[in-house]
Amino acid sequence: MRRWNGWGDSSNEYPLKSSGLRFLQSRLGGATPLQDAELATVIATVPDTRLPAHPLIQTDPEIRVRHARGQSLPDWLAMRSGDFGHFPDGVAEPENSEQVRELLDWAAEQNIILIPYGGGTSVAGHINPQPGDKPVLTLSLARMNTLLDLDRESQIATFGAGTPGPLLEQQLKEKGYTLGHFPQSWELSTVGGWVASRSSGQQSMRYGRIEQMFAGGRMETPRGTLNIPAIPASSAGPDIREIVLGSEGRLGIITEVKVRVTPLPELETFQVAFAPNWDVAVELVRSLTQSRLPLSMLRVSNAEETRTHLTLAGHEKLVSLLHRYLSVRGCGERKCMITFGVTGEKNQSKQTLAACKRRIRAAGGVMVGELLGRKWEESRFRSPYLRHGLWEHGYVVDTFETAVNWNQVTPAMTAMEQAVRDNAGNGEAVHVFTHLSHLYPQGSSIYTTYVFRCSDSYEKTLQRWQAIKNAAGDAIVAHGGTISHQHGVGRDHAPWLKHEKGQQGMAILEELIHAMDPRKQLNPGCLIQDDSETATL
Amino acid sequence: MRRWNGWGDSSNEYPLKSSGLRFLQSRLGGATPLQDAELATVIATVPDTRLPAHPLIQTDPEIRVRHARGQSLPDWLAMRSGDFGHFPDGVAEPENSEQVRELLDWAAEQNIILIPYGGGTSVAGHINPQPGDKPVLTLSLARMNTLLDLDRESQIATFGAGTPGPLLEQQLKEKGYTLGHFPQSWELSTVGGWVASRSSGQQSMRYGRIEQMFAGGRMETPRGTLNIPAIPASSAGPDIREIVLGSEGRLGIITEVKVRVTPLPELETFQVAFAPNWDVAVELVRSLTQSRLPLSMLRVSNAEETRTHLTLAGHEKLVSLLHRYLSVRGCGERKCMITFGVTGEKNQSKQTLAACKRRIRAAGGVMVGELLGRKWEESRFRSPYLRHGLWEHGYVVDTFETAVNWNQVTPAMTAMEQAVRDNAGNGEAVHVFTHLSHLYPQGSSIYTTYVFRCSDSYEKTLQRWQAIKNAAGDAIVAHGGTISHQHGVGRDHAPWLKHEKGQQGMAILEELIHAMDPRKQLNPGCLIQDDSETATL
Repeated sequence: MRRWNGWGDSSNEYPLKSSGLRFLQSRLGGATPLQDAELATVIATVPDTRLPAHPLIQTDPEIRVRHARGQSLPDWLAMRSGDFGHFPDGVAEPENSEQVRELLDWAAEQNIILIPYGGGTSVAGHINPQPGDKPVLTLSLARMNTLLDLDRESQIATFGAGTPGPLLEQQLKEKGYTLGHFPQSWELSTVGGWVASRSSGQQSMRYGRIEQMFAGGRMETPRGTLNIPAIPASSAGPDIREIVLGSEGRLGIITEVKVRVTPLPELETFQVAFAPNWDVAVELVRSLTQSRLPLSMLRVSNAEETRTHLTLAGHEKLVSLLHRYLSVRGCGERKCMITFGVTGEKNQSKQTLAACKRRIRAAGGVMVGELLGRKWEESRFRSPYLRHGLWEHGYVVDTFETAVNWNQVTPAMTAMEQAVRDNAGNGEAVHVFTHLSHLYPQGSSIYTTYVFRCSDSYEKTLQRWQAIKNAAGDAIVAHGGTISHQHGVGRDHAPWLKHEKGQQGMAILEELIHAMDPRKQLNPGCLIQDDSETATL
Repeated sequence: MRRWNGWGDSSNEYPLKSSGLRFLQSRLGGATPLQDAELATVIATVPDTRLPAHPLIQTDPEIRVRHARGQSLPDWLAMRSGDFGHFPDGVAEPENSEQVRELLDWAAEQNIILIPYGGGTSVAGHINPQPGDKPVLTLSLARMNTLLDLDRESQIATFGAGTPGPLLEQQLKEKGYTLGHFPQSWELSTVGGWVASRSSGQQSMRYGRIEQMFAGGRMETPRGTLNIPAIPASSAGPDIREIVLGSEGRLGIITEVKVRVTPLPELETFQVAFAPNWDVAVELVRSLTQSRLPLSMLRVSNAEETRTHLTLAGHEKLVSLLHRYLSVRGCGERKCMITFGVTGEKNQSKQTLAACKRRIRAAGGVMVGELLGRKWEESRFRSPYLRHGLWEHGYVVDTFETAVNWNQVTPAMTAMEQAVRDNAGNGEAVHVFTHLSHLYPQGSSIYTTYVFRCSDSYEKTLQRWQAIKNAAGDAIVAHGGTISHQHGVGRDHAPWLKHEKGQQGMAILEELIHAMDPRKQLNPGCLIQDDSETATL
């Protein structure tokens, strides 16, 4: 069963290996875990619902607990402490667009706040009920999870918006197709959520971001139904798709999504190489990306992430051999791991693979064969579980990310990491490392992970996190980065949005929301910090 | 000097060859040209300006004549007849964003309508002054035509919005770069115009549509300056770029454009093949496109277009030899010409070329070498001149276009052509032919050209065109096509926009315009037929 207070199914466990624990202890000092709350205790804190009865709405406390929080660090601390803050007054799980429409109209009559809920995987506070006088209904799309149509000739599949990654790929695979959207949240996140938050998957180099996959669909808005036809390309005015993308539940509820799919690839391989240091690694991946070589995936870890990954992987003897081999080949302490993927038609893929290896070697990189690539593939969705393994030992892990142009990649990364190191308070050490995982000819995403010790209370642990988060957000916007490359804005990133969009850009977003949802019943406070809401919160 | 009443520089002449004339006469019957007006006669019809004096504004009649019309068929008839309808009251040619800002603020104070003007190449009535009580100022970006910045590392170039195609490529070429945006209007159209109208170029398969190139920039709006930062990708809410794209002067005046550029390619080749018939040709180009083979260009002409092009090309003996050769190889009367391009790094391009040729031959196509490909390249921007050559003999040519999913390509094309044939009135023949020139895994653009005889007056010739245009627009939306794949909406396509955007989509566009330009001073009637405007027109 899915965990009520953490990531994934409770049968999936990935405890921290002893080599990893020793490594963290050496970096951060020993740590003491905080006490977890029990589900029964939390259920007992759920207040009576304020919702009128409705046949599509469930109001029992457990379902309200299970839909109250996402997967941000504040969410985690809330769930582990048992201090949830606010719960939805009820949860509806409609089966089709018509029931969504019915609930939307009913909510308008009853003056109820609606929060659309996909997989509940937000790491930015997208789905958290806010305090206020109005009852809050969380509208889960979980039951709208099937392939509704497949146009093979045009390679367009239509899905219910609540279809999660594995179910989506499974239904496509049966027909010989794939979408190829693999965010780290893939096990739980949904196609509607990907659209609403402008998600990006690990193989975006081949398949594109969700923006390139999203061909059209249906959104129920307070003003009526918005149908977006699937047209290959259009010059007919501003693109409505691009307004729905990233709308984070504020303009309407996405109920059906048409996506561009492709036949299953003939060949797919992931490979690992090492570069002697960061500067060589970045120059290499930039030149690979700008060469337009059709890779499906490319990522590079900085030296600290490379060291951390190899240590946390266990297999101490093998890893030690690897270090020695790489050292002889010129990749020592400062080495950086590069992982890349090739996916597609057989001949073309083989040519691409050969060309990529040539370029890596010419740039001073060292190929290490497919084994580490397969390891990456096996564990590609495992990172979210890491928080569990660390937590048990008193450590907290979180991540943040941005994208900047190439001329800012290294300065931004350096500043982001330094902001983390400098802001845990009282000289507390933080272990921080970074990778680039979505590379574009123009620039790259930057994804930073950091681990710190729990403080002696939940409240102080949250404060430690908040200080780091604030400093990281400031460092990002100071370097011209987006406030989020792949996680969306939610409530946690909203304070920085104005730096990216500017005054007029913010005005456009506010007007859009006002136009579609003048009474601000849809997910208020998400994406845009409405003045009126800020006042009431 | 640029023609005041037609396309391009007056030194460029491409008269109709005798074989082409005979061919059209056999299809349509003999025709009688209409009488052209003289520039001096038109200048004499220009009324006094209604604008207050302003140091940045010119009001002499000739400049007002030269900025009154675009390049649509109604524009052509207006210019040739000398009956222009309406003129702008003046033309400003600001040199920088600050002067645009000054004019915008001044226009607000003085209650003046502003029409942004790039290259004046619209074929959909984007820049035509409308009747009304308020004075009209056309704001030409012509003097903002330089490369302002080049970030080589991030491959981002910043241009003044009024930079036309040749000047843009020349400035980039000097630095070793290209944008690669080559619409047929390239000789005259501007980078700001491409953004404002969501243009697509002939090599969009490699370089993308202008949407993929446009990284950010600056727009002066009635509310203030909108700066869009150039970020490689972002999940932070709806994309403001995608609201500026296609805004057609209604939200503000684009003054600076940041575009994604690439180093000049090592290799570029265009090649021609033939397929025995349309069905084989479409299946072949669809499979090529869906294979993701990195071609830079791909187009296919239907049998009638193939026949017409080969006949109009002249070189009767050579063409006759070609027909015989192809006939022996199985490509007879119904043959369709396929043109494709490969552009990029040398080795990769050679592999792509070889793979493409293999696929063409395997599908029953016949390669005919590079000569015809080079011919296409030489004449790639020549089509707009064709109107001149035909007009002298009493024939009128126009085009329209859409994009549909693959499952609609042939039905839509058939219906579009039939709509043209059936609607010239009184059994008048129309010569109509079609190509697909922007191919996507999801579907394709459809570009139809038609030639008909002038009637015995300008008025009746315009009526003949209007009947065809209306029927074509209806056929497009009946097949789920976009009302424009690459020409924008303007005023000519606005009546059909609601079919593509739907009621809620239209509401979003109306709200955006209202939010940015509440007094409707920017290009009213373009893109959206405002109720209030419709009433006053």
